[in-house]
Amino acid sequence: MEITKEFFEELELAISQNDAFSINHLTAEMHYADISVLLYEMNTEQAIFVLKVLDKETVAEILTELDAAIRVEFLEDFSSEQLAEFVDLMDSDDAVDLLKEQQIRKREEVIAIMKNREKARNIIHLLPFEEGTAGAMMARELIKANINWNIKQCIEEIRRQAEKVEQIYAIYVVDNEGILQGRVSIKKIILSADDNLVADIYEEDVISVEVYKSQEEIAEIMQKYDLESIPVVNVKGKLLGRITIDDVIDVIKEQADADRQAMSGLSGDIEEDDTVWDSIKARLPWLIIGMGGGMLAASLTNILGQPVLVLASVLANFMSLIAGTGGNVGVQSSSIILQSLANKSVFQLNTLQRLSKVLVIALCNGLILAFIVLGASFFLGYDFKIGLIVAISLLSVVLLASLMGTITPLILSRFKINPALASGPFITTANDLLGLTVYFLVAKMLL
Amino acid sequence: MEITKEFFEELELAISQNDAFSINHLTAEMHYADISVLLYEMNTEQAIFVLKVLDKETVAEILTELDAAIRVEFLEDFSSEQLAEFVDLMDSDDAVDLLKEQQIRKREEVIAIMKNREKARNIIHLLPFEEGTAGAMMARELIKANINWNIKQCIEEIRRQAEKVEQIYAIYVVDNEGILQGRVSIKKIILSADDNLVADIYEEDVISVEVYKSQEEIAEIMQKYDLESIPVVNVKGKLLGRITIDDVIDVIKEQADADRQAMSGLSGDIEEDDTVWDSIKARLPWLIIGMGGGMLAASLTNILGQPVLVLASVLANFMSLIAGTGGNVGVQSSSIILQSLANKSVFQLNTLQRLSKVLVIALCNGLILAFIVLGASFFLGYDFKIGLIVAISLLSVVLLASLMGTITPLILSRFKINPALASGPFITTANDLLGLTVYFLVAKMLL
Repeated sequence: MEITKEFFEELELAISQNDAFSINHLTAEMHYADISVLLYEMNTEQAIFVLKVLDKETVAEILTELDAAIRVEFLEDFSSEQLAEFVDLMDSDDAVDLLKEQQIRKREEVIAIMKNREKARNIIHLLPFEEGTAGAMMARELIKANINWNIKQCIEEIRRQAEKVEQIYAIYVVDNEGILQGRVSIKKIILSADDNLVADIYEEDVISVEVYKSQEEIAEIMQKYDLESIPVVNVKGKLLGRITIDDVIDVIKEQADADRQAMSGLSGDIEEDDTVWDSIKARLPWLIIGMGGGMLAASLTNILGQPVLVLASVLANFMSLIAGTGGNVGVQSSSIILQSLANKSVFQLNTLQRLSKVLVIALCNGLILAFIVLGASFFLGYDFKIGLIVAISLLSVVLLASLMGTITPLILSRFKINPALASGPFITTANDLLGLTVYFLVAKMLL
Repeated sequence: MEITKEFFEELELAISQNDAFSINHLTAEMHYADISVLLYEMNTEQAIFVLKVLDKETVAEILTELDAAIRVEFLEDFSSEQLAEFVDLMDSDDAVDLLKEQQIRKREEVIAIMKNREKARNIIHLLPFEEGTAGAMMARELIKANINWNIKQCIEEIRRQAEKVEQIYAIYVVDNEGILQGRVSIKKIILSADDNLVADIYEEDVISVEVYKSQEEIAEIMQKYDLESIPVVNVKGKLLGRITIDDVIDVIKEQADADRQAMSGLSGDIEEDDTVWDSIKARLPWLIIGMGGGMLAASLTNILGQPVLVLASVLANFMSLIAGTGGNVGVQSSSIILQSLANKSVFQLNTLQRLSKVLVIALCNGLILAFIVLGASFFLGYDFKIGLIVAISLLSVVLLASLMGTITPLILSRFKINPALASGPFITTANDLLGLTVYFLVAKMLL
């Protein structure tokens, strides 16, 4: 649905008049995802008022949609008793995300107060898992069937669990010890006679992940095999929970956003509607690092550059071209490595194969660029020697920047740092320095 | 499963000996997604041989996984009759993707030969839809129930369609004219008595998309509302097909890849294992554009810069700092706009609000950087006037580059060009030019 400015103003009026009835009436037909977007547009007091007057089911859904920082702010105004009522209505994975943001004391209170004791046990089970692992992503709610059951017993179980599991996807088959044996699609359940045995119709080939697997690995597996849900098992193969595709989409989006931010020199998840102060905090550190590089470049130019600029001041004209091309080549190279690191193919090239291929490409590109610049400088009436210095420097810079751009993300990735940083301002600044050094050294030799 | 080098060598040996039995034996336990990855590692003849000896069901699945360029290459060796057998086994959306890559004559032959005439009709229906729209993404296979049926009739329909629809997700409810009325979850079907009416248990609130909606809009909607499938309707509300979440994940990934490439100055979907020639083609155009900018910078420095460099040659030291900071600020700004354009919130800021906020942030960052550089230049023993020139230029460049970085993606997006290009080498080069111009003009005034 389209949300108009008029609608929003009507809602704000209702809030200012403490008119709970109108707020409920206005939002009655709205999807909780749309209501949560509306809350972002309000000030904190308005949003909290809305959350206090809506029914608990809707608020529980809205809470799962909100960003952590905003959610913490909103929930400060709610007592542990009220929080427990919301958490009772959430999937265990969403409940754990919310509770992890709360102070330990409040978290423990909420869990102690919760009416849904099975959910409370599930939450206690999930809390210890490390952020970013399958354990932290999975929900405990799922439908499992014993391999010795018949279809009728399966359907009884679905009926028993139906309230708790929103979207079923598949029924997981376990043995008496709870070890995952396979899965039965819900379609097959419908099409089977009641007295058929699970053992006769289940599929043995079920793709599962261990509880310690990283969210990136899970996203890759679910994408590759087009899975809408995946069971999570412990090292003994015991079924612990399941991860659904909506969580994986969030992981993919977050990863893409984090890469884009790293490539652009932004720290943290900064958005246009964040405060001025947040924007400055996200941008300034990278600008200062870049400027630090610029000051180094100034010293470098002073020491290496001034002696040659005295001999031929026209060399200053090409400083920008050399540094800029180095930056561009470096970013291209690291971006290609980034892609490789993200989409792991069966056999990864080893570092030597990588570098030799990179050098061949760089040599071709570098030679072409060098000839173009030689021709252009001749055409623009520069001395041949100047053109030669620029061309040789350009070729060297393309080769060096390609190597740097290839190696840096590989090193970052080895140290578990986001390799996308290698396409950001840090590497560009480093390539500036590299380019200028090469340029001045070549000039010194040839002048 | 982990694919070892030994396994691959064994497979290659079987291929070289034309040993169809061993190939089938070796791949018997493998998922089709894994087999398709293996094919990328083979040369074309090997891959085609494998496709010829595997059973048709597996080949049909493998074909849906392959990249278009590779698929076309592999399928050249297959007759229209063979193609028709594969297409008979595919979902209509995948079949259409494959057939669109074939020459019209072969495409028409395949459709004419197909045994599954219902599928052929579905394909003919889907072919005209424009690439990137809901019509081109949707599959015709789905399960629909008339609103006047009872649950027993529904289950009969599921039984009838079960072969054709892999993952059901939901049953769509239509009236006698085929107009979409709502949906029933498959869970509800299981839990309802046979003589219950669809009309009594279906949900009216079903989110659907029109057939002309763009794939990006669909991805946004399905993500926002956590949908695993969405029905596609025509302007009259008639149910035409459905789009499933796996296709949407592909859209999200493609968009992220396209953005990354645009930001890095790469044309097309270039990967590390592409040929040297493909790599050069993807990289060289952007490097030449960047170098064109560099040549402009050279002329600019020659005309504006040399007169001031004659007066104070130390000014050359700070050229890199000024240009680099401009580039960094520009990329940050356009990246934030990129994020805004991707995640449309309820009320977009208008251009004036955007720019005024951008300017406030730029002013703060610029002033801080200017003071730092003034202090650093004093500390490094530069003349106060030189420090002042650099500081004033830096502040101006930060302001201008912020504006450029904000406006460029908005303009590109208005003209339906990927705004991520604004974070690429083009804008960085433009900011280099801008930075140097400002620097030389300020120097001219103050010297």
